[in-house]
Amino acid sequence: MAVSARQVGSKSLSPTREYEPYLEAVWGLKNHWYPAAFSHELPDRQVKGVMIAGHEIALRRAKGKVYALADRCAHRGVRMSKKSMCFTDEHLTCWYHGFTYGLDDGVLKTILASPDDAQIGKIKIRTYPTFEKNGMIWVFVGDEDYKPAPIEADLPMRITSERDPNPIAYLLDDHTFVRGIHQTGNSNWRLAVENAFDPGHILIHYDNPLIVATDRKLALGWQPTAPEAIEVIDVPDGPKGIMNRYDTGLYNYIMENQVTGMKVYGKQDHYLRTSMWVPGVILVEHWPITHFAQYEWFVPVDDTHHEYWEVIVGRCNTEEEYREAEFKYINFFEPLGLRDFNGNDLFAREAMQDFYAEMDGWNREELCKLDSVVVGWRKLATRYNRGIQEPPTGARRA
Amino acid sequence: MAVSARQVGSKSLSPTREYEPYLEAVWGLKNHWYPAAFSHELPDRQVKGVMIAGHEIALRRAKGKVYALADRCAHRGVRMSKKSMCFTDEHLTCWYHGFTYGLDDGVLKTILASPDDAQIGKIKIRTYPTFEKNGMIWVFVGDEDYKPAPIEADLPMRITSERDPNPIAYLLDDHTFVRGIHQTGNSNWRLAVENAFDPGHILIHYDNPLIVATDRKLALGWQPTAPEAIEVIDVPDGPKGIMNRYDTGLYNYIMENQVTGMKVYGKQDHYLRTSMWVPGVILVEHWPITHFAQYEWFVPVDDTHHEYWEVIVGRCNTEEEYREAEFKYINFFEPLGLRDFNGNDLFAREAMQDFYAEMDGWNREELCKLDSVVVGWRKLATRYNRGIQEPPTGARRA
Amino acid sequence: MAVSARQVGSKSLSPTREYEPYLEAVWGLKNHWYPAAFSHELPDRQVKGVMIAGHEIALRRAKGKVYALADRCAHRGVRMSKKSMCFTDEHLTCWYHGFTYGLDDGVLKTILASPDDAQIGKIKIRTYPTFEKNGMIWVFVGDEDYKPAPIEADLPMRITSERDPNPIAYLLDDHTFVRGIHQTGNSNWRLAVENAFDPGHILIHYDNPLIVATDRKLALGWQPTAPEAIEVIDVPDGPKGIMNRYDTGLYNYIMENQVTGMKVYGKQDHYLRTSMWVPGVILVEHWPITHFAQYEWFVPVDDTHHEYWEVIVGRCNTEEEYREAEFKYINFFEPLGLRDFNGNDLFAREAMQDFYAEMDGWNREELCKLDSVVVGWRKLATRYNRGIQEPPTGARRA
Repeated sequence: MAVSARQVGSKSLSPTREYEPYLEAVWGLKNHWYPAAFSHELPDRQVKGVMIAGHEIALRRAKGKVYALADRCAHRGVRMSKKSMCFTDEHLTCWYHGFTYGLDDGVLKTILASPDDAQIGKIKIRTYPTFEKNGMIWVFVGDEDYKPAPIEADLPMRITSERDPNPIAYLLDDHTFVRGIHQTGNSNWRLAVENAFDPGHILIHYDNPLIVATDRKLALGWQPTAPEAIEVIDVPDGPKGIMNRYDTGLYNYIMENQVTGMKVYGKQDHYLRTSMWVPGVILVEHWPITHFAQYEWFVPVDDTHHEYWEVIVGRCNTEEEYREAEFKYINFFEPLGLRDFNGNDLFAREAMQDFYAEMDGWNREELCKLDSVVVGWRKLATRYNRGIQEPPTGARRA
Repeated sequence: MAVSARQVGSKSLSPTREYEPYLEAVWGLKNHWYPAAFSHELPDRQVKGVMIAGHEIALRRAKGKVYALADRCAHRGVRMSKKSMCFTDEHLTCWYHGFTYGLDDGVLKTILASPDDAQIGKIKIRTYPTFEKNGMIWVFVGDEDYKPAPIEADLPMRITSERDPNPIAYLLDDHTFVRGIHQTGNSNWRLAVENAFDPGHILIHYDNPLIVATDRKLALGWQPTAPEAIEVIDVPDGPKGIMNRYDTGLYNYIMENQVTGMKVYGKQDHYLRTSMWVPGVILVEHWPITHFAQYEWFVPVDDTHHEYWEVIVGRCNTEEEYREAEFKYINFFEPLGLRDFNGNDLFAREAMQDFYAEMDGWNREELCKLDSVVVGWRKLATRYNRGIQEPPTGARRA
Repeated sequence: MAVSARQVGSKSLSPTREYEPYLEAVWGLKNHWYPAAFSHELPDRQVKGVMIAGHEIALRRAKGKVYALADRCAHRGVRMSKKSMCFTDEHLTCWYHGFTYGLDDGVLKTILASPDDAQIGKIKIRTYPTFEKNGMIWVFVGDEDYKPAPIEADLPMRITSERDPNPIAYLLDDHTFVRGIHQTGNSNWRLAVENAFDPGHILIHYDNPLIVATDRKLALGWQPTAPEAIEVIDVPDGPKGIMNRYDTGLYNYIMENQVTGMKVYGKQDHYLRTSMWVPGVILVEHWPITHFAQYEWFVPVDDTHHEYWEVIVGRCNTEEEYREAEFKYINFFEPLGLRDFNGNDLFAREAMQDFYAEMDGWNREELCKLDSVVVGWRKLATRYNRGIQEPPTGARRA
């Protein structure tokens, strides 16, 4: 046999030079908006701690507004979110020694048992911009002095009728059904993004109950046939994304493989379209059913974990439509879709983790024709990110 | 806002230069007495393994006397305490190949299946001095050739009527009720000591059932107002300690904070006094109730764990007094005090651990006026320790 | 006391210079046959993943034959054994993107959804030689271009009547009862081998139910009295082993120790003989009962784990003999022998692990007269191995 293992793969398909900064983005892209919590997870007078891209953040709601502060007391470094201590609507008090910070500015306003202390007014912890709409809370994570971008620039673009005859709802609009789940995945955020957007990964779903029960004709994979199959979208001052143009004839929907005899059993055609947006949020139009959409975020937590957000979005102009969406969400979308179907994706991402993290996978991978889509995303993230997140001091993990 | 995060704190309150050796005492102070077990934990003919300051120690009782030897067989390095093998009252035999050491001197006396071996009499494992009284066993841990100090020098001083009109009992006296628990805490021993002695930490107890049920007027914190509030006690050839002089008027008992509106609900005054003694044992006089005292040790195990000892001490001249103390211990002191109330302290210490161990907390902490007490302890430990424990070979952990 | 701890041991008994390569064999010996699975563990059309000496291997049975391939898809590095995907009898398909390799040669034959891909025919994953007989599957693990040795060379020699008047059965013969278990041990493979072959380790079994119930006169240890007690066996082009010649008078069977008063209670003599063979397989003749034999392998998994194989072998010429052997296996050999009795050995090996792995045990051990047998094995492994296994890329662990 003349060929030797792995060394022979065509490296021209793996042009790591073109997205070198992406390879360094172990802790995520910085200066972007990331979802931090669902609104129902943050009741009044409770402190919730999250970690995003290595930033430890304490969320606190007061008088309806959401505040985000660094989640380490300046005094002796405990996470303030470990025990909620909320006396007023203006302050966050650390449960340990009563260091009390202004919610607005993070400045030390008093120490419970040392009210005349010289440190008061001199110490400050950093704050983060927040945004809340339709049941979701976002935080702008990155450099303290970076002016936040509009949140719309970090979400998938609004789909208009020019792009789809039956455009799906926009996440931030009123009269929009928005509901979902999030959970921690044991892989780097980039492996999660790449799994989701990859038109070859759908093989892992070929035997899924959602597909089999609805008799959907899901391909073994979608093979791009021309560079134009993958469109880079750059909205001025707005979203930057990359779309698989499944609405064109530029993809081969592979339904059978001659060598192995494997073929698709489902009979029902189902149209969907996927696009991935900086800093890592996918829009799946017409999924899990036509007219609805699924948003997914792969929020960097630390170098080896991401928070996997799955949100169903639909237009509901009436109370009756909302009740129907809720009925379908509870009894179909969440159990069969978000949990079971997408559970396979979590499995696949985690299966890549040791190869990429410990076995030099970024240089050893052998990409194929399907991966031009993944490479497209890597280039997009390299071109449009607002900075590569540095590891935190001490590189602590979630 | 002119102030920036953390950089602005008054570093004059954090004079790490003054206690540099303390910062290196990750594995503890050496050449001191530490509690190793309660007497009831060491029945005859049983081997019990403990780790203190990185020293692996096998305890063995024979004819009533407690012996302590290095807990690694010289032959192939197994811990002899993993399986008790006790044939005589003079020897400790390793369960693996029968290497048999003298309890007194640690010298290899025989090998069960190689009784004529050239190694016999030539190999020796080290021994440690022990002390037992009132149901507790101590071991003197440190350099092999260090002459043990009297145990009294490593315990809190005896409180006489000159120091308290109603002095609490002394641990080593006859007719003393001594009972307690120990458990492993997931933090370095220094964070445990500092939490216990810190007059600002009591905020973590403000909502504790013991406090609320007894309606005690526990302050938000005790603020020292003059250097004399903190007394360094140097008994010649005896204990070295530092005392919070709550018996003077030199502390502000803060009962209310104007900025946050927080205040204390309890109505019943309760007097107590705390003092911390090298190598890290606190005496809380008149706690959990008047006339009783609580001793606590924070014994270094390895660099990230301490053994937390909590012992209640009281004077019991009659059998009736002993029965009453026991009744209160079982139904009040242990469940509400040692476990529930002090459980908050374990929580607080462990919350500091990653900041100090991984995030350069010793240099990043921002101390306040309350912390002059903590700094006082650090200086005491620096001045009066008998050596800084080196990490063990291979820096193995418990 | 003039002697000091550990430094005084006679280092002439620990001549590490003579087996230096053995000390480097942390990940095992390479270019040898190792058991990988029992036949019943590998049904048709199922992929089973194992790790041997750091090699991740996917086993697959097709049309009865066993194939072994590298268990990382060349594409994005997932282990193919994580989800079985078997469409044909000629291919192994990766569950993620459908990369499909020839079972015979490891060459990429198709990609399910990219059947015209340029990578097809160019990528190859490595394959491993396999062997199956009497319910066991072996894989030849090591360098890809190393010509496999005959499997007989990596098994204990056949015992003929010249060596034993009642020779036990040979593992690979027809009409042989072969049955056993395997489990993962938390120690390096070398500590496992040394524990098994060591004539001093039997002390750990002195109180075992199997010994006590059968009233066997098991010595405290077997002390070699002359170099000839330990025979090195070098079969040309065949097995290389070292045998404890318990069939001679060259061992002292120590039944009592004067210093401790310890003695053996059992009354029934029982003859057995042990020999250890490269790359680490012990033969215990006449164990657990006369005429039967126990084979044990200590297969390197990674640097801190071994797979412990225990297999009972006996001659069964008739169906009736087979049924009796099975009855004894199920109700005696496996529960009392393989699990309970040898469970003590697992315990002992794991007790050595931290000393050797983290505390420089290879240089600190203090060997005694009994250990000439262990040293003999070390020299044998040094002399006859076919290579020292290098750590895998990224030194990943099982």
